[in-house]
Amino acid sequence: MIATPYLLYLGHSNDEIGIKTSRGLAVFRPDICVGEFRHDDCGLTLGLPRLDFAAARDAGARTLVLGIANAGGRLGNDLVEDALAAMEAGLDIASGLHQRLKDEPRLVAAAARLGRTLHDVRDPRPDIPVGTGRRRAGKRLLTVGTDCSVGKMYTTLCLARALQARGVKADFRATGQTGILIAGDGVPLDAVVADFISGAIEQISPDRTDGGWDLIEGQGSLFHPSFAGVSTGLLHGAQPDALVLCHDPMRRTMRGLPHYQPPRLDDCLEANLRAARLTNPQVRAVGIALNTSAMDAAQATDLCARTADMFGLPCSDPYRMGVDAMVDLLLAMDAPAATETI
Amino acid sequence: MIATPYLLYLGHSNDEIGIKTSRGLAVFRPDICVGEFRHDDCGLTLGLPRLDFAAARDAGARTLVLGIANAGGRLGNDLVEDALAAMEAGLDIASGLHQRLKDEPRLVAAAARLGRTLHDVRDPRPDIPVGTGRRRAGKRLLTVGTDCSVGKMYTTLCLARALQARGVKADFRATGQTGILIAGDGVPLDAVVADFISGAIEQISPDRTDGGWDLIEGQGSLFHPSFAGVSTGLLHGAQPDALVLCHDPMRRTMRGLPHYQPPRLDDCLEANLRAARLTNPQVRAVGIALNTSAMDAAQATDLCARTADMFGLPCSDPYRMGVDAMVDLLLAMDAPAATETI
Repeated sequence: MIATPYLLYLGHSNDEIGIKTSRGLAVFRPDICVGEFRHDDCGLTLGLPRLDFAAARDAGARTLVLGIANAGGRLGNDLVEDALAAMEAGLDIASGLHQRLKDEPRLVAAAARLGRTLHDVRDPRPDIPVGTGRRRAGKRLLTVGTDCSVGKMYTTLCLARALQARGVKADFRATGQTGILIAGDGVPLDAVVADFISGAIEQISPDRTDGGWDLIEGQGSLFHPSFAGVSTGLLHGAQPDALVLCHDPMRRTMRGLPHYQPPRLDDCLEANLRAARLTNPQVRAVGIALNTSAMDAAQATDLCARTADMFGLPCSDPYRMGVDAMVDLLLAMDAPAATETI
Repeated sequence: MIATPYLLYLGHSNDEIGIKTSRGLAVFRPDICVGEFRHDDCGLTLGLPRLDFAAARDAGARTLVLGIANAGGRLGNDLVEDALAAMEAGLDIASGLHQRLKDEPRLVAAAARLGRTLHDVRDPRPDIPVGTGRRRAGKRLLTVGTDCSVGKMYTTLCLARALQARGVKADFRATGQTGILIAGDGVPLDAVVADFISGAIEQISPDRTDGGWDLIEGQGSLFHPSFAGVSTGLLHGAQPDALVLCHDPMRRTMRGLPHYQPPRLDDCLEANLRAARLTNPQVRAVGIALNTSAMDAAQATDLCARTADMFGLPCSDPYRMGVDAMVDLLLAMDAPAATETI
């Protein structure tokens, strides 16, 4: 577990896409973000107090989150110098960058000397088991998608909050680096060795007997030729009772693959249900989540209404319109018997 | 590439299952196996000349293959001592054991001193790309299965040989440790990081313009809850023109999972074709391979004939009956256009 609250790093960044991990934390976990750290040449802000490392520590911060992406996911010298200063001020360091903190000797030496912890959230834990497909107690929802980066993490977080707001126990189970920093725990699924994909999900969403829901963050798409293996193992490991299909209606080609088009919603939903039945024959769809950020309110409302009609399922832009109708469906679902086996 | 020919290691083993890698090499590559190394307490033989390390080197051997599995895949002291002696005698070492040769300091030191090479065939190469799904030139066949360990490697090798016997260029593309040792190259797919599964297959089966076939060794099953992610990424990376479905008719439960039953052949074939169409819409099934080793000849022939009738596809036990009818079908297939994109 990564110690909270966080100080969010923006550094010298002027690239909005590049700070999406810091942004995601500020949006979804303002309760655990005491401030942002930026240099004078940084033109971006998360709307949080601008603090230096000492002031952040005084305000209660425990960990500096390097929630930025730069070219090649490298730890540049600026980043290393800032991380060293943050450790001197009493902060742990967490990073989702490709280049690991633990591979930078200056950071490792400083952490040892100061008693600080370095968190590389792209490093899976070492004890992931092979999946078994054994039916587990409790209720699970998984977000699936027509493509990568279509809103699966946002949708999952919105569902967790909406359930909690109705007094239902609900936990977000993170499978990507931003999600892990938001939740403080989870598995960086894309970095797990292939034989352990489904086992990694079984590990982060074990038997649950308190009547609550695990909301599991989806990754990739069964229709993305680069990453469908990850999505398949995730689907089997999650053994979801409920699926929400996430889609970006403005997407014309698959992310990173201009020679592939997104699948039809009905084909994608059916393929996910079919694959999911292997580990949970009772799986059902409970909604469709559309990213309507490029549309005005009337267009967005109209598209969601038409999609809902077409599929006979709740449809909304979760971040913009909420997920009330999906939550109504979830709450009407019975808990599976804890001892059931397939 | 691992230098051949090989000396096959049996050591002190008395467990037929434990020597299956050495056995696979002796069966499929007698041409590159100069002998077997066994201690006096080893009760097994591959039918090859029994040689010590010096005699093997004199007979041309270049690499000692530790083609055995012992408890936990560990390098015991016996194995290390034998490997050291083999290196002194002039041999490289190749191992498919879970514990890596490179993590044993005595072996690393000896290899450096003697100029020998240590091959850990479970270590993927470091430059595997993310898959792109780009259509590649050439013809590819992939074996798929109802379960793990149902004969996919044997079937793939039989097909490669049968094509070669008809004068067709054909290469076996290995995806598991025994296959890699047989081919001298390949990718240990179960050890690849999840995001790179399909890219690993694209790498080992690149554009092919000589009119020949790549025969790609399948892994796992779309219906195995532990490993379906590997099988999915393999299917997409292979973009096969032809599939052969492999099945063990005596299998009652999925390997390692007594709570799961094997799928029906028709369901399994249809699921594989459906998933494969993402990267090759022209994919077709060309045969069904049954492992009939537990049946007498009449039973085996009868089962294959009935299965062939039911599916309208060639069906045989490849190792026992050959694969002539499947090869006839393959040779009747047109080559896809090299420049085609999806």
